[in-house]
Amino acid sequence: MSHTIKDKSRLLARVHRVRGQVEAVERALEAELGCGDVLQLVASVRGAINGLTLELIEEHIRHHVVDPATEPDAGKAQGAAELIEVLRTYLK
Amino acid sequence: MSHTIKDKSRLLARVHRVRGQVEAVERALEAELGCGDVLQLVASVRGAINGLTLELIEEHIRHHVVDPATEPDAGKAQGAAELIEVLRTYLK
Amino acid sequence: MSHTIKDKSRLLARVHRVRGQVEAVERALEAELGCGDVLQLVASVRGAINGLTLELIEEHIRHHVVDPATEPDAGKAQGAAELIEVLRTYLK
Amino acid sequence: MSHTIKDKSRLLARVHRVRGQVEAVERALEAELGCGDVLQLVASVRGAINGLTLELIEEHIRHHVVDPATEPDAGKAQGAAELIEVLRTYLK
Repeated sequence: MSHTIKDKSRLLARVHRVRGQVEAVERALEAELGCGDVLQLVASVRGAINGLTLELIEEHIRHHVVDPATEPDAGKAQGAAELIEVLRTYLK
Repeated sequence: MSHTIKDKSRLLARVHRVRGQVEAVERALEAELGCGDVLQLVASVRGAINGLTLELIEEHIRHHVVDPATEPDAGKAQGAAELIEVLRTYLK
Repeated sequence: MSHTIKDKSRLLARVHRVRGQVEAVERALEAELGCGDVLQLVASVRGAINGLTLELIEEHIRHHVVDPATEPDAGKAQGAAELIEVLRTYLK
Repeated sequence: MSHTIKDKSRLLARVHRVRGQVEAVERALEAELGCGDVLQLVASVRGAINGLTLELIEEHIRHHVVDPATEPDAGKAQGAAELIEVLRTYLK
């Protein structure tokens, strides 16, 4: 995944945090916490997964399609910037 | 979480599988797999989290609100059964 | 839909607003507005649909399963209140 | 919205259908259909909105970022094709 080599350690740190959140769900089930508490923990895993998805897609766009910061064609640069903004709205 | 005591081991097995899927994402990032492959793994984590959420909510309804299988009031039993069916559609 | 008779006019007003938002998308396409603008309008339809869904499900719970405000069984009343709170988180 | 001029009539037909689905929800509420039926109609509006969103985003990518079918840079063409495929998974 060449576009993540550079940012590999940051992405790995993020996935480690997701794993920690999943382990918190396990501990909550073991400890027989209330339903609301367990579901809140599961909701935070879901939020973290959505954030990770968005970051991976953004990196894919920047590294394998068009990077708005370096693209010489102004139209494509703007198109890619708009795309990233739209995806931030939809993948939240 | 009284409604999960009975089903605790099944739910725990399910969360263990989610953790395994998160670890697969980590390994894919470490191994620098292609973007599409990593995102596919992340999508399967998301699917598993949605399935877990649905199961927890269903159990909550059956054990803490109304269990369609044992509720004596036919109207409430049907209302709870419809609710579960609707949530299966929406939380997928 | 007996649980919406009482709140029928409020729900209808809400659906009318959704229709108005869909018509705004049509006008934006006719007027050849920019992609970002059209997608923003579509995102607001989606948000309105999610809000409507949540309201319909909440009313279904209150009127056909357990109403936390009137249920004499304290455990069920609390279970239904927690359920509504959880669904507000997940269906947003 | 230059990328939709060409496909404008197709997109407009799609939005018209969404409006028809919203009107069906209105009629269902007026006719006091059962909760499950109304929610099913609302779910189909949501599905149609997600489909419209995906189509608008795909067209944006093809017309304003990179069109996999015509892009001379093979890496970018593949990157854009993978992006579209990933979004189809995530925006469903």
